[in-house]
Amino acid sequence: MRAEIITIGDELLIGQVVDTNSAFMAEELNKVGIELYQITSVHDDAAHIASAVMAALSRVDVVITTGGLGPTKDDITKHVLCELMGGHLVPDKSVEAHIRNLYKDRPAVLNRLTETQWLVPDNCTVLPNRVGSAPLMYWQTLEGKHLFSLPGVPYEMETAMREQVLPVLQKESSEQITHRTIMVSGIPESALAIHIEDFENALPENIHLAYLPKNHTIRLRLSGYGVPVETVEAEQRKLIALTRQWLVATEDKPLEVLVGEKLKALGKTIATAESCTGGKLAMLLNKHAGSSVFYKGSVVAYSNEVKENVLKVNREYLEKYGAVSEQVVALMAFGVMKVLNTDFAIATSGVAGPDGGTPEKPVGTVWIAIANRKNVYTECLHLRGDRNTITDTAATLALVRLLPRIA
Amino acid sequence: MRAEIITIGDELLIGQVVDTNSAFMAEELNKVGIELYQITSVHDDAAHIASAVMAALSRVDVVITTGGLGPTKDDITKHVLCELMGGHLVPDKSVEAHIRNLYKDRPAVLNRLTETQWLVPDNCTVLPNRVGSAPLMYWQTLEGKHLFSLPGVPYEMETAMREQVLPVLQKESSEQITHRTIMVSGIPESALAIHIEDFENALPENIHLAYLPKNHTIRLRLSGYGVPVETVEAEQRKLIALTRQWLVATEDKPLEVLVGEKLKALGKTIATAESCTGGKLAMLLNKHAGSSVFYKGSVVAYSNEVKENVLKVNREYLEKYGAVSEQVVALMAFGVMKVLNTDFAIATSGVAGPDGGTPEKPVGTVWIAIANRKNVYTECLHLRGDRNTITDTAATLALVRLLPRIA
Repeated sequence: MRAEIITIGDELLIGQVVDTNSAFMAEELNKVGIELYQITSVHDDAAHIASAVMAALSRVDVVITTGGLGPTKDDITKHVLCELMGGHLVPDKSVEAHIRNLYKDRPAVLNRLTETQWLVPDNCTVLPNRVGSAPLMYWQTLEGKHLFSLPGVPYEMETAMREQVLPVLQKESSEQITHRTIMVSGIPESALAIHIEDFENALPENIHLAYLPKNHTIRLRLSGYGVPVETVEAEQRKLIALTRQWLVATEDKPLEVLVGEKLKALGKTIATAESCTGGKLAMLLNKHAGSSVFYKGSVVAYSNEVKENVLKVNREYLEKYGAVSEQVVALMAFGVMKVLNTDFAIATSGVAGPDGGTPEKPVGTVWIAIANRKNVYTECLHLRGDRNTITDTAATLALVRLLPRIA
Repeated sequence: MRAEIITIGDELLIGQVVDTNSAFMAEELNKVGIELYQITSVHDDAAHIASAVMAALSRVDVVITTGGLGPTKDDITKHVLCELMGGHLVPDKSVEAHIRNLYKDRPAVLNRLTETQWLVPDNCTVLPNRVGSAPLMYWQTLEGKHLFSLPGVPYEMETAMREQVLPVLQKESSEQITHRTIMVSGIPESALAIHIEDFENALPENIHLAYLPKNHTIRLRLSGYGVPVETVEAEQRKLIALTRQWLVATEDKPLEVLVGEKLKALGKTIATAESCTGGKLAMLLNKHAGSSVFYKGSVVAYSNEVKENVLKVNREYLEKYGAVSEQVVALMAFGVMKVLNTDFAIATSGVAGPDGGTPEKPVGTVWIAIANRKNVYTECLHLRGDRNTITDTAATLALVRLLPRIA
């Protein structure tokens, strides 16, 4: 079964909002064996929405729209889809009760605009939106195709997908898509492609290999279409054997999750001292629920004052070697490990740019340190790119270096 | 003039990558007066790429593709577009010289796959890719339409847009789009819509108002199409007068940039002490170059140990009131202000969930504190949503509360 997503909203087309919904939906659809064929982003414009929906319905079995369901004038998705599917808007008692209940401690929110939210098309199935006021709509067409309309608010869309849309689709879907991913680091993409060329050429026709390079790591994803899981896993084992010297992970989980799992299994803790990465490692490490078990915190030591006062980095070292140096980054790691009383620590210090580079330490020079109670590993990275790329890559490579050192 | 973006890559359609490129491109195109009509994400599949490009060229004047230009087997964009436009791939001496120069200190990268990168269509203009190896391609069709093919790597795409694509398009574009945005907070979207209904109904036909709610703030964006800047700004002034009591900002800049500008203008500094926001404020405040002038750092105080040892929060207070309390969050703000020696501080402490809620302090309870040398402002937020929504909203509202207090 194949699906398309249509994201609706002027905000996407003037760049005020990054579409994070589609990636979430794509992943969830894939998990239940539905291939996402296309994503289309269109304006809050009746003709544009209608033509995009019709085109998608002509190509695939499932069309999911997001956005344009708010109570204000610029939100027209409900009206457009209702007319397109030949229905009429009618008040719905259960949606009204839900909305009144949702706002019972905020009665000021209820007004004649929110009241339009309990008008729904008379020819669709209204699915409950547990966490928001916009009703979720579901049509089955005469040709047996499925059309869903979900809100654009990520939390509401995610809840709707998990609780309403996927259970409906799971019953309909048949072909199984199996993904198996490994992550490597330390080899350029093209050199890797040559190294595993024979393997790639020998892959069965219904197993596809993709390269996903990011921040000096490459994920290699094997996708099997209608193939037994075991067949895909056998190919994954061959790939692991071929890439062992650069192998970082054999599961498709974010690095910070792998780090967290390993620390939790060993009952160990970690802290971070961040200069150039400025909170990125902290954000990554406590992004996921339950992180407080292994992650104690970070000192974002942007100024030398913090390095001295909080991390107890000797001022003489700062003056002699500079903040971006092997000596200082090692002391930062030991300092934060001591202050926060942890088993491991990561420290970063570098020149993220665009200013601040010197001939000896150009933009992109980043020192990282990984410390445990006995030792410290240090490395000088020479990175390219803009400020954001440099700090993202430094944070990623710090986790890559940490992972095998957790023991 | 109207444009479409086509993003190419299986990774977008299985959800492994969030498309951040389109938002950047959309914003840049808008700035030079080009309306982005549609974004389409397609697979690394020849027929799919070709049909999407042809459909887009039939609708608009400018089509920009991103992605699929790497050296590996799954990257086919160059071949597809070359064939579609009726060209042949031929080696290009200047691209070859550029690539050899790019990798001169990494000769291992040069191999027969990277060598395919200097093959280019013989009927396109090759634009220089200053920061990467994939050549940028530009075709003008017989109908006078423009087709660009850019890499999917964000840094390369951004450099290509700024240095190559926009200068070409700027010469071609005529209609002026003017956006003026204000930000408000503290009023629900529908109540705001009713409050400004007469204003909205009285807007000239070629000025459009959009509501962009996010994290308990709403940006109101006025877009004028082919209208003098002064006309749009006159409407913006009316809107400001109408919404003064909820007004946060009158410029379309991220909150952290407004905070940074105000601090820099006054020569003041700030630090943050983050429990539940866990590095989000740090990331925001040092996201932009030059932040080290006003931002000294953060203590991400995930555990009580950090609150005690680094922020010097009295243990008795932690035991008596709990970490999520007015008393503790105020002490955290004063603590970090003292340790990092700043003029202002923000502290956060809350229950981000999904675990850890109690009847007295359910998930979504977040205390924030804004301190200066003399006073501290505290507030208890009651937020809804998942872990990420709660921490994003808490960080946003902390900056909203801080902004008018910078003096």
